[in-house]
Amino acid sequence: MERIIAKYYIETPYTVEKAAQVLAGEQSSGTFVAVPGETEELKARFAARVENIEILETVDTPAIPGASSPTNTYTRANVTVSWSIENFGYNLPTMVSTLQGNLYEISQFTGLKLMDIILPESFKTHYSGPKFGVTGMRRLTGVYDRPVIGTIIKPSIGMSPEDTAAIVKTLVEAGIDFIKDDELMQSAANSPFDKRVRTIMDVINDHAQKTGKRVMYAFNISDEADAMQHHYDTIVKHGGSCAMISINSVGLSATKKLCDRGELSIHGHRNGWGMINRHPLLGIEFPAYQKIWQLAGVDQLHVNGIKNKFWESDDSVVKSIKSLQEPIFKESAIPVISSGQWGGQAPETYRRTQTVDVLYMAGGGIMAHPMGPGAGVVALKQAWEAAVDGLSIEQAAAKYPEFAESVKKFGK
Amino acid sequence: MERIIAKYYIETPYTVEKAAQVLAGEQSSGTFVAVPGETEELKARFAARVENIEILETVDTPAIPGASSPTNTYTRANVTVSWSIENFGYNLPTMVSTLQGNLYEISQFTGLKLMDIILPESFKTHYSGPKFGVTGMRRLTGVYDRPVIGTIIKPSIGMSPEDTAAIVKTLVEAGIDFIKDDELMQSAANSPFDKRVRTIMDVINDHAQKTGKRVMYAFNISDEADAMQHHYDTIVKHGGSCAMISINSVGLSATKKLCDRGELSIHGHRNGWGMINRHPLLGIEFPAYQKIWQLAGVDQLHVNGIKNKFWESDDSVVKSIKSLQEPIFKESAIPVISSGQWGGQAPETYRRTQTVDVLYMAGGGIMAHPMGPGAGVVALKQAWEAAVDGLSIEQAAAKYPEFAESVKKFGK
Repeated sequence: MERIIAKYYIETPYTVEKAAQVLAGEQSSGTFVAVPGETEELKARFAARVENIEILETVDTPAIPGASSPTNTYTRANVTVSWSIENFGYNLPTMVSTLQGNLYEISQFTGLKLMDIILPESFKTHYSGPKFGVTGMRRLTGVYDRPVIGTIIKPSIGMSPEDTAAIVKTLVEAGIDFIKDDELMQSAANSPFDKRVRTIMDVINDHAQKTGKRVMYAFNISDEADAMQHHYDTIVKHGGSCAMISINSVGLSATKKLCDRGELSIHGHRNGWGMINRHPLLGIEFPAYQKIWQLAGVDQLHVNGIKNKFWESDDSVVKSIKSLQEPIFKESAIPVISSGQWGGQAPETYRRTQTVDVLYMAGGGIMAHPMGPGAGVVALKQAWEAAVDGLSIEQAAAKYPEFAESVKKFGK
Repeated sequence: MERIIAKYYIETPYTVEKAAQVLAGEQSSGTFVAVPGETEELKARFAARVENIEILETVDTPAIPGASSPTNTYTRANVTVSWSIENFGYNLPTMVSTLQGNLYEISQFTGLKLMDIILPESFKTHYSGPKFGVTGMRRLTGVYDRPVIGTIIKPSIGMSPEDTAAIVKTLVEAGIDFIKDDELMQSAANSPFDKRVRTIMDVINDHAQKTGKRVMYAFNISDEADAMQHHYDTIVKHGGSCAMISINSVGLSATKKLCDRGELSIHGHRNGWGMINRHPLLGIEFPAYQKIWQLAGVDQLHVNGIKNKFWESDDSVVKSIKSLQEPIFKESAIPVISSGQWGGQAPETYRRTQTVDVLYMAGGGIMAHPMGPGAGVVALKQAWEAAVDGLSIEQAAAKYPEFAESVKKFGK
């Protein structure tokens, strides 16, 4: 019978073997009392199994509090555990409760992070994964052989539909490929969702009719379940191609239901990520996280960016992008690179990931470009062309005047 | 215009004033660029406002990594921020993205925990909150003036519906009020959901017909959105009164949709809680957490228990129970006390919370009682009667023979 495998980075005041057994016991057939009909065969069938232990360093201070028996030595280790998929079948929330759930509560651990999941083969056919992903994004935007260039509407909140549409008009005329709502914007008092979609899509449809270029706009549909369906319908009705969901805030079950509809590319915004990832020994790492959300069918997934304005390290960003390059389904979710990006990070991003299959988001780099938003978009395309050609920032600036202006303004 | 207020416990390498302004800016009208139609009035209407700052201690080591400018002094503080509800209206996921979301990513913080939320008055009428809560639980179980006594089916996973029903029969005959699935159990290969519900409800319905006592069983319906609706229907069809949801794994939008149906009491299992709460300076505290889930309509919420087997402190457990005692809606969610409980914790639980409006869960304390499960249930009722009467464990053991046996077996 197929098994699902989970890899953890843990810290424990006990021996790692003992802690690993507690982990496996707690998350399967633990707390056995003798009951009628309970056989060794049943135990073997449903018990979690510790597959591997790799002992790492010891430390004298626990990473997080709550140890059941404080000592002066805490051991860190990589622990691999597997479960038969008979335990939960094809049920993503119960899979999450099994692979994570109460594990973080166990006092035999002073640190526990789910690092990766190895999915059983049948998951790759039972779940269809992203309906659009990378190639769907290219088909919907008509952008090939380079990153899709995007931006976020700012200010996040406060503008009327007309004000927003005016910015959208500037951006589409500047040659942008993709625009998104901020995650704070859904349906504000002065910008009801339906009116906002209609007003913005008028601009995008008009531009598409005139030029043949159809810009993708990710409208934030995050809301209660029925409202999200209604918002989704509204986008479809007005000819939109994308809906954005704050996946952590909305949750797995409702997000999957939206992804299952398959009419729009789903932009997965991971706000809240810092809460479950920022501590090195608590939570979940992106390779595990993205698999759960690709199983749900999310087409676009945020990965932060090189030299971002947030806390996340470049190594973590690169690991995340690379993790999405491993194919699971027919389509793979496209990495959404954002936060403090202006094009100057393109060479390093490309050098370390060797891919242009990304959605590259810049804010000020476009709107505040000295030669105007059109030059801002051009500069980003130049930055990536230079990156693929192996040019340094200095070489790229010497070659491309628009990018040179970006370097002068943003490259400090 | 009404405002929603959020209280944070933070740590920062900057001055607290500056960090608080970053927080407010990031989560509302931050990153302003001059755009047409953007007025001071609009800014005032949608900007988040720092309401209060209380500076606490300084430390020399950051609580979590990722500071943008490492120093030797990190200041901790309580910071209160408010938003106009015009920003997101009645949209719980977007409220969560606003009050939490990217805040955890900000490198000006080396610690951030959402401690509490003060809801605007209109939320208390727009949202109906728990449909059953404490009084609904009493009405459905017929248990008044004492805690509802419950237990969890163990082993968590591996038993057939018949094996499970046999345990259920023992428990209902023992006089139990409430039984729940383990969160790992949903629909396993050898125990499909529908058959399990039918087989178990046959026992419960039969017992109710014979004795007039209707035991509540919380069937775990956690699954994809449509499957959860089907499972809910199945429980209703077989005369059940309760469905359990792993709320963190399922998520806010799908959980609310189930709660909105209002035919079953919803048992909110918070597995995954340790991931978002265990670190003292990362995540969310229960007073904020429970308000979000009561807004969704959850009727029963886990709070752990005094002297639990997990990492959580007694103080945190008491704070959680007390937090649920503050009324928000017509009904309040009932605290679910569990983990290592056998009755011996009843005096301390009562002394510190002064309430019997709890669901008190014990496992071994019932099934492994030396005089049998019936005596186990009796002992738990005795423990709580003694607690309310102000008796010590010793005094209670002297008065009640069944409880005395529990003390002998479990009270080490």
